Amino acid sequence: MTDFFKGIPQLRYEGPESDNEFAFHHYNPDEIVMGKRMEDQLRFAVAWWHSFAWEGNDPFGGATFIRPWHPQDTMAHARLKADIAFEMFRILGQPFFCWHDADIRPETGNYADNLRTLNEITDYIGGKMEEVGTRLLWGTANMFTHRRWMAGASTNPDPDVFAFAAATVKSCLDATHKLGGENYVLWGGREGYETLLNTDLGQELDHMGRFLTMVVEHKHKIGFKGTILVEPKPQEPSKHQYDYDVSTCYAFLQKYGLENEVKMNIEQGHAILAGHSFEHEIATAVTHGIFGSIDMNRNDYQSGWDTDQFPSNVPEVALAYYEILKAGGFTTGGTNFDAKLRRQSLDPEDLVLAHAGAMDVCARGLKAAAAMLEDGSLEAARKARYAGWETAEAQAMLNSSLDEITAKVLGRDLRPKPQSGRQERLENLVNRFV
Amino acid sequence: MTDFFKGIPQLRYEGPESDNEFAFHHYNPDEIVMGKRMEDQLRFAVAWWHSFAWEGNDPFGGATFIRPWHPQDTMAHARLKADIAFEMFRILGQPFFCWHDADIRPETGNYADNLRTLNEITDYIGGKMEEVGTRLLWGTANMFTHRRWMAGASTNPDPDVFAFAAATVKSCLDATHKLGGENYVLWGGREGYETLLNTDLGQELDHMGRFLTMVVEHKHKIGFKGTILVEPKPQEPSKHQYDYDVSTCYAFLQKYGLENEVKMNIEQGHAILAGHSFEHEIATAVTHGIFGSIDMNRNDYQSGWDTDQFPSNVPEVALAYYEILKAGGFTTGGTNFDAKLRRQSLDPEDLVLAHAGAMDVCARGLKAAAAMLEDGSLEAARKARYAGWETAEAQAMLNSSLDEITAKVLGRDLRPKPQSGRQERLENLVNRFV
Amino acid sequence: MTDFFKGIPQLRYEGPESDNEFAFHHYNPDEIVMGKRMEDQLRFAVAWWHSFAWEGNDPFGGATFIRPWHPQDTMAHARLKADIAFEMFRILGQPFFCWHDADIRPETGNYADNLRTLNEITDYIGGKMEEVGTRLLWGTANMFTHRRWMAGASTNPDPDVFAFAAATVKSCLDATHKLGGENYVLWGGREGYETLLNTDLGQELDHMGRFLTMVVEHKHKIGFKGTILVEPKPQEPSKHQYDYDVSTCYAFLQKYGLENEVKMNIEQGHAILAGHSFEHEIATAVTHGIFGSIDMNRNDYQSGWDTDQFPSNVPEVALAYYEILKAGGFTTGGTNFDAKLRRQSLDPEDLVLAHAGAMDVCARGLKAAAAMLEDGSLEAARKARYAGWETAEAQAMLNSSLDEITAKVLGRDLRPKPQSGRQERLENLVNRFV
Amino acid sequence: MTDFFKGIPQLRYEGPESDNEFAFHHYNPDEIVMGKRMEDQLRFAVAWWHSFAWEGNDPFGGATFIRPWHPQDTMAHARLKADIAFEMFRILGQPFFCWHDADIRPETGNYADNLRTLNEITDYIGGKMEEVGTRLLWGTANMFTHRRWMAGASTNPDPDVFAFAAATVKSCLDATHKLGGENYVLWGGREGYETLLNTDLGQELDHMGRFLTMVVEHKHKIGFKGTILVEPKPQEPSKHQYDYDVSTCYAFLQKYGLENEVKMNIEQGHAILAGHSFEHEIATAVTHGIFGSIDMNRNDYQSGWDTDQFPSNVPEVALAYYEILKAGGFTTGGTNFDAKLRRQSLDPEDLVLAHAGAMDVCARGLKAAAAMLEDGSLEAARKARYAGWETAEAQAMLNSSLDEITAKVLGRDLRPKPQSGRQERLENLVNRFV
Ligand SMILES: [Co+2]
Ligand SMILES: [Co+2]
Ligand SMILES: [Co+2]
Ligand SMILES: [Co+2]
Ligand SMILES: [Co+2]
Ligand SMILES: [Co+2]
Ligand SMILES: [Co+2]
Ligand SMILES: [Co+2]
Repeated sequence: MTDFFKGIPQLRYEGPESDNEFAFHHYNPDEIVMGKRMEDQLRFAVAWWHSFAWEGNDPFGGATFIRPWHPQDTMAHARLKADIAFEMFRILGQPFFCWHDADIRPETGNYADNLRTLNEITDYIGGKMEEVGTRLLWGTANMFTHRRWMAGASTNPDPDVFAFAAATVKSCLDATHKLGGENYVLWGGREGYETLLNTDLGQELDHMGRFLTMVVEHKHKIGFKGTILVEPKPQEPSKHQYDYDVSTCYAFLQKYGLENEVKMNIEQGHAILAGHSFEHEIATAVTHGIFGSIDMNRNDYQSGWDTDQFPSNVPEVALAYYEILKAGGFTTGGTNFDAKLRRQSLDPEDLVLAHAGAMDVCARGLKAAAAMLEDGSLEAARKARYAGWETAEAQAMLNSSLDEITAKVLGRDLRPKPQSGRQERLENLVNRFV
Repeated sequence: MTDFFKGIPQLRYEGPESDNEFAFHHYNPDEIVMGKRMEDQLRFAVAWWHSFAWEGNDPFGGATFIRPWHPQDTMAHARLKADIAFEMFRILGQPFFCWHDADIRPETGNYADNLRTLNEITDYIGGKMEEVGTRLLWGTANMFTHRRWMAGASTNPDPDVFAFAAATVKSCLDATHKLGGENYVLWGGREGYETLLNTDLGQELDHMGRFLTMVVEHKHKIGFKGTILVEPKPQEPSKHQYDYDVSTCYAFLQKYGLENEVKMNIEQGHAILAGHSFEHEIATAVTHGIFGSIDMNRNDYQSGWDTDQFPSNVPEVALAYYEILKAGGFTTGGTNFDAKLRRQSLDPEDLVLAHAGAMDVCARGLKAAAAMLEDGSLEAARKARYAGWETAEAQAMLNSSLDEITAKVLGRDLRPKPQSGRQERLENLVNRFV
Repeated sequence: MTDFFKGIPQLRYEGPESDNEFAFHHYNPDEIVMGKRMEDQLRFAVAWWHSFAWEGNDPFGGATFIRPWHPQDTMAHARLKADIAFEMFRILGQPFFCWHDADIRPETGNYADNLRTLNEITDYIGGKMEEVGTRLLWGTANMFTHRRWMAGASTNPDPDVFAFAAATVKSCLDATHKLGGENYVLWGGREGYETLLNTDLGQELDHMGRFLTMVVEHKHKIGFKGTILVEPKPQEPSKHQYDYDVSTCYAFLQKYGLENEVKMNIEQGHAILAGHSFEHEIATAVTHGIFGSIDMNRNDYQSGWDTDQFPSNVPEVALAYYEILKAGGFTTGGTNFDAKLRRQSLDPEDLVLAHAGAMDVCARGLKAAAAMLEDGSLEAARKARYAGWETAEAQAMLNSSLDEITAKVLGRDLRPKPQSGRQERLENLVNRFV
Repeated sequence: MTDFFKGIPQLRYEGPESDNEFAFHHYNPDEIVMGKRMEDQLRFAVAWWHSFAWEGNDPFGGATFIRPWHPQDTMAHARLKADIAFEMFRILGQPFFCWHDADIRPETGNYADNLRTLNEITDYIGGKMEEVGTRLLWGTANMFTHRRWMAGASTNPDPDVFAFAAATVKSCLDATHKLGGENYVLWGGREGYETLLNTDLGQELDHMGRFLTMVVEHKHKIGFKGTILVEPKPQEPSKHQYDYDVSTCYAFLQKYGLENEVKMNIEQGHAILAGHSFEHEIATAVTHGIFGSIDMNRNDYQSGWDTDQFPSNVPEVALAYYEILKAGGFTTGGTNFDAKLRRQSLDPEDLVLAHAGAMDVCARGLKAAAAMLEDGSLEAARKARYAGWETAEAQAMLNSSLDEITAKVLGRDLRPKPQSGRQERLENLVNRFV
């Protein structure tokens, strides 16, 4: 037991009236929401990446955090970091966590050493998981920080980098499998381009398609039952990224025959950077049968880069969970906080309370979403708006032709009557619940 | 012969040194560029929509233009508008034009009358085409202005609107065929949503997929040999549009089995609104085999709505034509100016000279693009960057597995060496040509 | 009594538990919030402009609304529109309304007629005001719709337009004074430019400065005691507008010596278009002593044009009222809904319920803001963060010099210790109230 | 002489036809442009910051460059870096360079050591300046990288940080003066806020006003004859920065009585991030009499963060120089490349050729701008547009009142006639020169 979180108690649910900062006011793991424990609906995960590996740098500033596990270049510090991470998991009591390889072991510069240290640290973490009871939502490979990845991983012009990437993903997928991970994620921050002038779009996409296919083949070979997830993001670090948004990924998956094998890990902030709302991206993935999991960290609407802030706006969060609950809730996915403390939030208390506040925000959003669904008015209004399509005649029209339809329009002198879309009334309805 | 363009001469090529405003300084139709007449490479078209039907309104202001064919609610004025349009075509000498049904005939509110007036006016226009020699690049249906379309055309919750849309497209596709049009375009400005709260995404997409399939079936039935084109745009008028960008359209086309039947009409301004460069959208369409035609009107980078300005930046235009020429040039497509005069540009001279300036900008861009391709340095640099993939070993790797690749990485202690991406040097290279 | 709102009852406060759509659930006019009646804190106004004059057009579509006062080109219809507007005011019970001249009388094209009809209709409206008890928050001149304004009003290159603008503002300010208006607003949608190429920035700004000075002089001459307000907006309709944001307006007011005479009417949507949060713009205006009034209509964060939607997000609205209450609340200003129905919201019910929902959203926001202020934790935390500045030494430093401070830094080997900014904890704190 | 640039020759002007990559094709220092040598018009400067201190990091990646002066934590490496910098200055032959303190000496964590090493290295650099003949355009203090600055420098809640900042600026201004610098710049990347929740806007602005006043007082005290410059930027690293854009800075300068003492250093990329064109910001500064200098590095229009790319678009650059030449050209200011190599541009050749290409782009832009001014058509058109204001009557109107103007409007039945704004024709005109 380190003294990093000294004096911070394990958080308990105390209800909305409590003014104890170190308690949950809305997140009540055992409360039943739409037939499941709240914990099992939300399936919270903490991201090692932002919460333990990021040191507070930004493009104009160096590290601001001072942590006992800095510098992060030794296995001793990697183990200490794991110890403290699990101390926080005990405080928060969230069921899951997530990692990149580079979050949990030092980068050594060569594959053999990276593989050995990854195996060692995941064994160590496996022990902590049993001890504390926290499970692995997903593992992933960081293929964007080291300079070898500067021009892409699977889309690199150099086949040696493709090879290094393939070996890296193998090591991470194997380790995820070993730890009982429920998903494996790929995020292609460098799979894209800085300038079209030096880029062969078609060849890079073909390589990425083949790479992802090999990952799926390996998953089946080793018997991993989790879901392979891709995380869309339009840009940053690259000027343009191939996994731009859910629809772009869906185009890609179909082209390479992977639409039944791979699903989406959707981040609120990335949805916004791509010009969409979070609920749009979720609904789109659901529509195409590729919804997987979420990263519940928001973007600042006025900042054009990935701010990765903890969620704080309950009405927005409610609309996201509404789409998820309407689709039946998570299966292997969950709610990961891929969220960064603000770099001025220096204290261990900040780290704990940022997560706690976010968990409360999500709990409020989830409950509001469930209440809306149970109330049923919103879905009834939606159904009523499309009721015309339920007639046999309307369905028959879909199976006819322009000529036949034209004959009908002429024959009946059809002049459609616009009906109110009732947007403000529906927004009022939502506001009864959030 | 009206006196609308009185005093404006037919424009001739006079070369870059001429300071005659009423002449071409770069567009020289008969000059050979990469083996074709410049006219046949560029395939310019004038859009009836912005150049003759738009009255200068914006969201905060009424009409500013005063034209002899206003108000546009009689067939007499429709014919006068056609007369004057062809007078401009004679002045400019561009080979093509484009129309929406609503640009060329008054909206009457009922289908039978709309059909009759469309047939009348297209007969009339057919006569002008023979007389002046201007051909039809594409026709299309305006399914966004009249209030019946407010909630979509093929994606409307009301099946009667779907029917009206089907009949409308039939009439426009038939008329396009009659006039020897080389393409037929669909732009879905209202195929999208204002709020997800009242929208059934999956059902709307299925209806749109079926609708587009019927259009393709009708094309084959009537023997139309042109290309069916879809024009992507992310939003405006709708908050979100289903034809967001090229990749989104490609996802849609694959889902509904239309990827070999439908191609893209890509507009510079819409690319920008979707967060892409114009050349990105073209290159993406080429990569997926769905490149069709372009609307060469730009957006203001600081305005978040569709400004539809005439192109003016030669280096940007050159990068677009570079992708087009590299892909072999246009087949049925062309360069349409879907461009609006600024609403303060009141005079007939403004209308003529906006097109003339744009044609010169495109000619300069085309010639620069051709020179770059013929020089070959840029393509040589691109090829060199990917040369590693040409080895048998690299190709074999693509057909292997994560396990095999990992063995190789370990066996050889592979440590990839990053190579410069040379972006600035390539930008310098481009600047030798533009 | 028309039958436009037939069947819609006068709205009453029924509390949050009521599920009556035609009632207030949070807006309770007589409830005391921070020492004042809620009605007197919020000072709601309905905008004639969007709620009665706009016909549902957008840049790609014509009118969607069908109203008994259409077409709006006769005085008979102007009176009918006024009758129905006041019927809605009776239903909503809000204390204020606002108008542009062009909202309330037809545009005739010449000044004398415009003046006469304005005087007639404001007399008529004055009668309705007495009858219903609704007061005028502000009047304003529409100097952007008619084509004469296309290149600006006070900044027009043509002095005749400047003259027409001056006469128009005189007529509107006089009419506002006659009706007991509490403010007079200027919004300069065309005071800006489409292209710098034809613009003399310095001359236009000088003319605008002189124009605004004349308005202030006229106000004093006629004894108008209300506040002159300017409404910032960065662009749209113009490519660039001179009243870009609060800071830009403050620069302008100082340059022309008007910073004690003119205040700001801040719109949420315009703040967002300028890259700011609403609360930022309010706080900036408060800091500079130029805060006046608000337009509480939001922008869609993903749409780059002015969507003017009714507010719906309570936490955001709460942060705005927090800044207002902290500054002492409104004086002559109020909460105007410069908000448009969505153009698909066709029914009279939509118009009423959009306002009612917005009033409830604002009431929730206001109460949350008041609770936060009364709780005091947020202000206590802010004060604590700057506590170091309260020492005499710190204050003395502000009055010293770089040399003296350097001597101190060297003498004491000063090495500042960063303190946590606690952003997430403060966001959690806010979430206890919203 | 190091071997870092081995094999790279000193660049000479060879004219546009040369295909020698290592030559200037447009930048010809001794060519006369509008009465001055091109070198003296453009006044190019190389920024130490991006070209020698930045290691290729981005928010998702570590260093990519491998340089002999890495790691940058010793004075030996600081001297080596200076040696190599001046080797590049000799190759490029540009007349100026710029530095931040943190670029040229290691950060030691305490003021006394920072001061000593700054003095040592600036003495060393002074020797190189004499040797090579390169002069100092401006110096500045980096008050954003070290964690002490995380919550601002002069606007920090901690007075000790204000003190440290004051001492730091003193040391940098003194060193700039020692080296004969022609300007001193302040850029306030952390002078702003992350969240309004913990910020006292008014107090922070007052402190910043007092700080800047002390800087001006110190300048006069030490007899520095250069210009004090502020560099506007809307955000990044802070969520909101107080020096948002030129107008915001002008508001601030007026409030604190500094508008005659401080001028603007305007960066193209920052203009774009603030929603403006570069030429807009220059023209605004010229209008208010606060134009100083430029950073000629562009932003990618599709990236919402500061990409700081070398300029490459000649038409855009021409419009910027047009405003500068029209205002009489630079006085103490110049053209600084505050530009970053792309992080994949690893080679010394990339560094040299990025600057060389940018210098050619600027030379083309300058010559085009000069040609437009000398041609005079654009200015003649602008003057003609405002000609109405030259009459005595129009000028008298500006000195009258709303009442008098209204009498005139009524008396003459004034009905202004809109004139074409001719935007496209003016754009065509510009395209004759670029
Ligand atoms: Co992110
Ligand atoms: Co993420
Ligand atoms: Co467009
Ligand atoms: Co178009
Ligand atoms: Co607005
Ligand atoms: Co407003
Ligand atoms: Co910058
Ligand atoms: Co800069």
